[in-house]
Amino acid sequence: MQTLKISNKLVKYAFIAMFGLIAIHSNAQVKKDSIQIRRIFDMALEDGKAYENLRTLCKGVGHRISGSAAADSAVNWGYNLLKSMWVDTVYKIPITVPCWSRGNIELATIYHDDTRLNITALGGSVGTNGLLKAKVVMAYGLEDLELLGEKAIKGKIVFLNKPFDAKTINGFEAYGACVSQRYNGASKAAEYGAVGVIVRSMTHKHDNNPHTGGMGYTDENNKIPAVAISTEHADMLSQRLKDMPDLEIGLRLNCKTLPDKQSYNVVAEIRGKSKNASIITVGGHLDSWDIGEGAHDDGAGIVHSIEVLRMIRANGYRPKHTVRVVLFMNEENGNRGGKGYAQWVKDRGEKHLMALESDAGGHTPRGFSISASDSLYQIISSYRSILEPYGCHVFKPSGGGGVDINPLKLDSALTINPNMILLGFLPDSQRYFDFHHAKTDVFENVHKRELEMGAASIGSMVYLIDKYF
Amino acid sequence: MQTLKISNKLVKYAFIAMFGLIAIHSNAQVKKDSIQIRRIFDMALEDGKAYENLRTLCKGVGHRISGSAAADSAVNWGYNLLKSMWVDTVYKIPITVPCWSRGNIELATIYHDDTRLNITALGGSVGTNGLLKAKVVMAYGLEDLELLGEKAIKGKIVFLNKPFDAKTINGFEAYGACVSQRYNGASKAAEYGAVGVIVRSMTHKHDNNPHTGGMGYTDENNKIPAVAISTEHADMLSQRLKDMPDLEIGLRLNCKTLPDKQSYNVVAEIRGKSKNASIITVGGHLDSWDIGEGAHDDGAGIVHSIEVLRMIRANGYRPKHTVRVVLFMNEENGNRGGKGYAQWVKDRGEKHLMALESDAGGHTPRGFSISASDSLYQIISSYRSILEPYGCHVFKPSGGGGVDINPLKLDSALTINPNMILLGFLPDSQRYFDFHHAKTDVFENVHKRELEMGAASIGSMVYLIDKYF
Repeated sequence: MQTLKISNKLVKYAFIAMFGLIAIHSNAQVKKDSIQIRRIFDMALEDGKAYENLRTLCKGVGHRISGSAAADSAVNWGYNLLKSMWVDTVYKIPITVPCWSRGNIELATIYHDDTRLNITALGGSVGTNGLLKAKVVMAYGLEDLELLGEKAIKGKIVFLNKPFDAKTINGFEAYGACVSQRYNGASKAAEYGAVGVIVRSMTHKHDNNPHTGGMGYTDENNKIPAVAISTEHADMLSQRLKDMPDLEIGLRLNCKTLPDKQSYNVVAEIRGKSKNASIITVGGHLDSWDIGEGAHDDGAGIVHSIEVLRMIRANGYRPKHTVRVVLFMNEENGNRGGKGYAQWVKDRGEKHLMALESDAGGHTPRGFSISASDSLYQIISSYRSILEPYGCHVFKPSGGGGVDINPLKLDSALTINPNMILLGFLPDSQRYFDFHHAKTDVFENVHKRELEMGAASIGSMVYLIDKYF
Repeated sequence: MQTLKISNKLVKYAFIAMFGLIAIHSNAQVKKDSIQIRRIFDMALEDGKAYENLRTLCKGVGHRISGSAAADSAVNWGYNLLKSMWVDTVYKIPITVPCWSRGNIELATIYHDDTRLNITALGGSVGTNGLLKAKVVMAYGLEDLELLGEKAIKGKIVFLNKPFDAKTINGFEAYGACVSQRYNGASKAAEYGAVGVIVRSMTHKHDNNPHTGGMGYTDENNKIPAVAISTEHADMLSQRLKDMPDLEIGLRLNCKTLPDKQSYNVVAEIRGKSKNASIITVGGHLDSWDIGEGAHDDGAGIVHSIEVLRMIRANGYRPKHTVRVVLFMNEENGNRGGKGYAQWVKDRGEKHLMALESDAGGHTPRGFSISASDSLYQIISSYRSILEPYGCHVFKPSGGGGVDINPLKLDSALTINPNMILLGFLPDSQRYFDFHHAKTDVFENVHKRELEMGAASIGSMVYLIDKYF
């Protein structure tokens, strides 16, 4: 009898679900944990330091691309701040980082009427070596290039104009569907003989700020310049091309890649009290693009992580496991910090329980992405109800936790624990790409309480996993 | 055996929960509904009119306090917009509204050094009739007045300085804990002989914008002027009083109450196809305070509601029940629109199934407050999973749905269906009181996608309740 079978199954699942939860989280435990988590939120919201720390990073250091003097200042900022917090240890892990300079010339004009376009070089682009003047062919993303073919593309600038899909609810998903045209556009277009690419900025927002971001070349001998254009000017250019398909654009860039430099991941720890202490890594990335102030990306993640350590110390709480904050260098254009850290962990044979990354901005918390086995996912899911009053209880199964921490688990050459838990902090995603990699990613566009709630959400998750694993 | 009892109970609840859900929402239904709800979000996000409607309301009409010429313009704006949408019927319900004028003089200075304070009259306050000069006594909310007593208060201006609690997660709860000092401060202080009140602005934000809002007098013969002060100046004044307890403040206001005026609720309907069609009311309030542009409060609720009607029409969907949008007048200082509408419904003996109000701003949707019987609450709760992909799935049991719709159910003299469902739309609350009743509540501070998501969330809930009731 199908009906009976179904109901038996349902009963079984109900038992597993309910007794699973009860086993993990008894009423007494829930009550105790609720008090601790309430304290974490109180500390973050009433006496929080995240917002003031973000102010000094954004206003004192500013943007800080890998290999720049500002990135060195950011390393010192992080090291000195962590030193001042009287945690157990603070140190730097040396890494070698790529170094790219935007230069001081970024000009794009529609040639016949001298209309200036709001563009900015993509990070890693070659310069134009003087004036690059060419006709333009528009493509709706990389998919179009093959259709257009060499005949339409050769000798031209390719304008990759696939927009964010307005219908996509999550900003990161909209980004994921478009970002290949930014990262791979120059290489793919060069295969068809293009002389440059102009890429629509990665944002839902309709405004006049170009958004930079990483790109890479696959062919060392065929590197063409690549720029991002603001969404408003992308729409204007698209319209102009309808009226005048032969219009020419003049492009001047003097950006260039310089030799690699020495830099650092900055690390601070509170050591775990357990004899079998593993490591819990919490981090964001210290570098940023060289536009704006790297406030949401990823100043927010940096001050979230530092705040977690501060709250553990202020609360007089000694964790079971070692809580280690890592301020990763070079997330934006190389991930040398993330890979370097995983290598360093492997070289030392360190046991890692969990790593959590905050690199999705400083907006209101919604929850966490979780990369863990089914059984561990179930255990972590049992914390949802205790986090619900704070609105950070949406958990999503995921393949990873973030660019910086993924190598710890997902890079087979580096990992020493393929079963570790990776978490990604998930704030509300509606506004993130308004600012991402643009000059508007400044301190003033981060909301104090939303930032503080993020720090408390991450702190709560670290508390729970430290306690129950 | 306690253990066995518990497990039996758990099994019972598990059955109720699971089969309850299945009864309401079969897999086939969920699939069909998911498609409809996806369409609603697509319509709102891809071709939405909410944002442009908000622009014309904020920029074309501006702020629109009850009884003002601007409020008349807002009535025309709403009526003409709804008329243009080819719904079944559009009409106006006359109501009489109070009329208060801010005047053109709002000055407060610390007398001895002429420091100008950022203040604004509270709505409904009497003027000062020239210069009001007095010493100041600070109170930490109304609770302090009795402790201070007549001796400390008589002849002075009472400075009510209870701040929003930073630790309170939900902005509306923080507001709820403080707003009595704004609404009742003048009356309570006058009982002890105060000559005026200065009330700390109702916001978590630390800035220099005073936030106005409603207040009332209980004693017709003892009305004293009342103003709001910005949070930064509240902190400054508090510090100055420590240094110089005898400082005097000079206050000049020429605000006044004028005779009542005629105004309107604006109504539009799409009639239900069912023979037993009830009414589903969806609304926000058309009036605003006379500062800023009433963008979040409550332009957002107005354009949310209008968008619901537009989407039903655009989708070619004929609801079972009559969906009626009401643009309520006079929510801010009298609730004549809400009460007048309930009276009008009662006079006509209309069957009401549900009313939903959007008056909590245009930020990212989080969910709904629900005032319904336990069994109806359970049914509505079964929609959570279908709304989860859109993030509007946090449901909170509540005593009401909003100031405008509550009289339909909660005013015993007016209600004809004490079992009707009241829903309140709940967007994220972290930023709402940054703008609430202040000059910063302007169109530019509403985020396009967040506003559109709100309209879609409300539209989805209307769709589900219309379909399943």
